[in-house]
Amino acid sequence: MKNIYIIGVGLIGGSLVLDIKRQNPNVVIFGVDNNEAHLEKALDLKIIDKISKLNTINEAELVILAVPVDAAVRLLPQLLDAVSDEALIVDVGSTKQHICKAVENHPKRRNFLAMHPIAGTEFSGPEAAFSGLFKNKTNIICEVEKTGMKLQEKALKLFASIGMRMRYMNPKAHDKHIAYVSHLSHISAFMLGKTVIEKEKNERDIFDMAGSGFASTVRLAKSSPQMWTPIFKQNKVNVIETLEEYILNLTAFKDKMKNDDFEGLFNDMENTNHIKQILNGIE
Amino acid sequence: MKNIYIIGVGLIGGSLVLDIKRQNPNVVIFGVDNNEAHLEKALDLKIIDKISKLNTINEAELVILAVPVDAAVRLLPQLLDAVSDEALIVDVGSTKQHICKAVENHPKRRNFLAMHPIAGTEFSGPEAAFSGLFKNKTNIICEVEKTGMKLQEKALKLFASIGMRMRYMNPKAHDKHIAYVSHLSHISAFMLGKTVIEKEKNERDIFDMAGSGFASTVRLAKSSPQMWTPIFKQNKVNVIETLEEYILNLTAFKDKMKNDDFEGLFNDMENTNHIKQILNGIE
Repeated sequence: MKNIYIIGVGLIGGSLVLDIKRQNPNVVIFGVDNNEAHLEKALDLKIIDKISKLNTINEAELVILAVPVDAAVRLLPQLLDAVSDEALIVDVGSTKQHICKAVENHPKRRNFLAMHPIAGTEFSGPEAAFSGLFKNKTNIICEVEKTGMKLQEKALKLFASIGMRMRYMNPKAHDKHIAYVSHLSHISAFMLGKTVIEKEKNERDIFDMAGSGFASTVRLAKSSPQMWTPIFKQNKVNVIETLEEYILNLTAFKDKMKNDDFEGLFNDMENTNHIKQILNGIE
Repeated sequence: MKNIYIIGVGLIGGSLVLDIKRQNPNVVIFGVDNNEAHLEKALDLKIIDKISKLNTINEAELVILAVPVDAAVRLLPQLLDAVSDEALIVDVGSTKQHICKAVENHPKRRNFLAMHPIAGTEFSGPEAAFSGLFKNKTNIICEVEKTGMKLQEKALKLFASIGMRMRYMNPKAHDKHIAYVSHLSHISAFMLGKTVIEKEKNERDIFDMAGSGFASTVRLAKSSPQMWTPIFKQNKVNVIETLEEYILNLTAFKDKMKNDDFEGLFNDMENTNHIKQILNGIE
């Protein structure tokens, strides 16, 4: 492999090419981004070797599409049109149905692999990128059978080499499950932050009384609205379902409090405690 | 200071006496707990020097009451009856109105200092205790003026020596604000955990798809129901208010999604993003 194009030099894209470059020192990383300052920063931080443009994408062997999911869906068909027959394009978006649908009949569908590396932090931009983000993390791959066999092999080898374990899932199941284990957490945190900020106009009070528990629960409220708005839009139906169930559970908890059913609250909490075992593997 | 009684040798009580002993190697730590296994464990772990009973509490110079808040409210009047006139009793509970009310007319009210060290983890029991938990953490002190002046001074010096900064607040304000910045976070996490567990019966799927974001948001769902049920009971009115506001915000978010008001969602998230600055000091 020689020429890798990274489209979107943010947290995920930047971290991916840092790891890939470490495993393959001879590759040349070309960065493409709408944001000129991000490109300059990525060059300074040696995340990319060269600043580039989409009009040379035919020279790419691997293209990593790491932009917000609405932009990814728009860009992918054009990229497939433009790349060489041997090139592989992967995306890293948090929704998979729309992007797979957008290219289902594309003549070069076999040059695309849909994936979702389950990794990240609440920060964004090239400064947030770091090597090692993907070690021991899950990479969910959708519709692997639609990607050319040699290209599949190339991708799996590459992402395994940076420490990821692959899991295979269809786009519909991916979007449904990820709404529960990722998208809902973000809304829960954003609305917790909103509720507390609205109430506590005097921020000094929050700061003094808030402990590490609040910080942990609200952490995802630092996430990028630019990235998350299109995710919620594309996964609207699933996310609304998770929100409805979450609101029902919160309302039931509130009603138990109102009715002094503290035994019921105790049981709810005890039954949820076994999340300990579930979380053991991911922390 | 010589004899310190710790009533409740769990995470908070255990960590406090570990720090105090490190600063004052000559003190003798007496442990009292309903749970015999916890006492033995605390002795093994050198958290306490001796296992003791409440009937020798008259020998204590300092008593730290670190039991669930319902037990604390029941025990405190009896402890005040039994301790010497020079003794200081502090509690560490997450609610302050009930406990202050329970002893407001006690003849030895001056021997009690109501406090809430804002520190902890999602774990419990003596094995969870560690030295250093309170470094740079806030200790909220209520009704300081009702505590004898020399005893105030003794307490403030002691808790400052283990790294805490003091803040003063009346019990009503404490319980109202803490409902927002602590109690609500716990319910948010417990109900997020419940929602996901109910949906994802196949836990292997959760494990594989959940990332560090979910782990962080749901972390507090590992907390002890024994400890949290009485907190919610004592702070019922405030907690219900926070839950109502949280549910309203989540419902508004869901309605914006249903109405395709993604600009509204974007603005909500962007306005909440400045939680970054608020959190900078507590992580």
